[in-house]
Amino acid sequence: MIFGAIVAGGVGNRMNLSGLPKQFLPLGSSKKPIIIHTLEKFLMCDQLDYIYLGVHKDWTQYAEELVEKYKLKSEKIIIVAGGVDRNSTIFNIIDAIENRHDVSDEDIIVTHDAVRPFLTLRMISENIDAAKRSGACDTVIPAVDTIVESKSGKVVTNVPNRKYLYQGQTPQSFKIKKLKKLYLDLSDEEKSNMTDACGVFVARNELVELVMGDTFNIKITTLSDYKIAEAILGGMPE
Amino acid sequence: MIFGAIVAGGVGNRMNLSGLPKQFLPLGSSKKPIIIHTLEKFLMCDQLDYIYLGVHKDWTQYAEELVEKYKLKSEKIIIVAGGVDRNSTIFNIIDAIENRHDVSDEDIIVTHDAVRPFLTLRMISENIDAAKRSGACDTVIPAVDTIVESKSGKVVTNVPNRKYLYQGQTPQSFKIKKLKKLYLDLSDEEKSNMTDACGVFVARNELVELVMGDTFNIKITTLSDYKIAEAILGGMPE
Repeated sequence: MIFGAIVAGGVGNRMNLSGLPKQFLPLGSSKKPIIIHTLEKFLMCDQLDYIYLGVHKDWTQYAEELVEKYKLKSEKIIIVAGGVDRNSTIFNIIDAIENRHDVSDEDIIVTHDAVRPFLTLRMISENIDAAKRSGACDTVIPAVDTIVESKSGKVVTNVPNRKYLYQGQTPQSFKIKKLKKLYLDLSDEEKSNMTDACGVFVARNELVELVMGDTFNIKITTLSDYKIAEAILGGMPE
Repeated sequence: MIFGAIVAGGVGNRMNLSGLPKQFLPLGSSKKPIIIHTLEKFLMCDQLDYIYLGVHKDWTQYAEELVEKYKLKSEKIIIVAGGVDRNSTIFNIIDAIENRHDVSDEDIIVTHDAVRPFLTLRMISENIDAAKRSGACDTVIPAVDTIVESKSGKVVTNVPNRKYLYQGQTPQSFKIKKLKKLYLDLSDEEKSNMTDACGVFVARNELVELVMGDTFNIKITTLSDYKIAEAILGGMPE
């Protein structure tokens, strides 16, 4: 089976637009919350059997009301309480999946940031194919900016060759059992340094295939991102 | 002396909005060309003695007409023909500076992309201070996205620690004589791989100080960048 896992565990909002966590802010002329835009993209993908949504425990009720208000296919959507960070929210979702389903070695999870509403069906579909083939994949775009390394934060220590660099986006997709096995094998220190689930595979020399994202597939975290998102939607049919 | 060097050598326009190179596209409610927005920022900085503008030889006349049309302080602006790429445009500008002025070891060039109109006076001023102090500096922001390395373009080969990574912007500023000396010392192969003038310093283990940029200081190269720029201006006094 193939599971979507939309990560929306945060309660923060650096935009000061309202008391709402950023994934619940209205977006576009429809004023639909960001998270609803994202959920709709996942619901359009027939390959996904269920879509899990990890939100902070104080907001699960609110998220359930939104699913009802926007008349989404609620039989496919399961809302679970998230953890303290991205990875723990993903593992809360995996626990919930294992409680409800008999997970096999081939079953796949397509993890995605709730605040990236502009992903496409093509990205989800290519993620599923790549995760089936290689066990893990990451959605990326070639690095646009020159990337500079500074160990001190004061002077440049290296300018790595840009042609080998990519900016990570999401979805990131994995064989569920393999992800869990690799993660449980990490030391506590390794776990705390692992802000990115793909890093779990790379740390153990396991394949992570690249899937091409899009510059439009932005993560909405600041007020300027939010304005950019409105500008992107202004030029797109909703 | 301190010289601005605005790099606008390109003739391309990936946006298909008109036959104009992207630096000449209108921006904001004023419809001022992007390059005029950028020039105005440089003109506001009293520390700059002259501002050199490197444009493709087919567009020097057009650029001169724009400077006149927008009633800029034309006695401070010198338009020169650019080269085939960014670095050769910078060295064309340095040649023009050396033809007109007696350049000392302490004289500084503040190089900047014409298509980054949202730089601030603070960035220019901090660039000048840092280049005086260290000989070279680069304007950067902490990397927002996870950066992924792939040697093959197919699978992830490394996920470098994001806390040491920055996205390069401009201005990049240098002691003119030092930049020229280091550059002339490079082999032809090193020169052809050197898309970034700061790389010249790093390749020879010379200091390049970091100056903090801003997420707003975007480079307008695609249609989506252009929309984002309009969105940024929509929320800013011009």
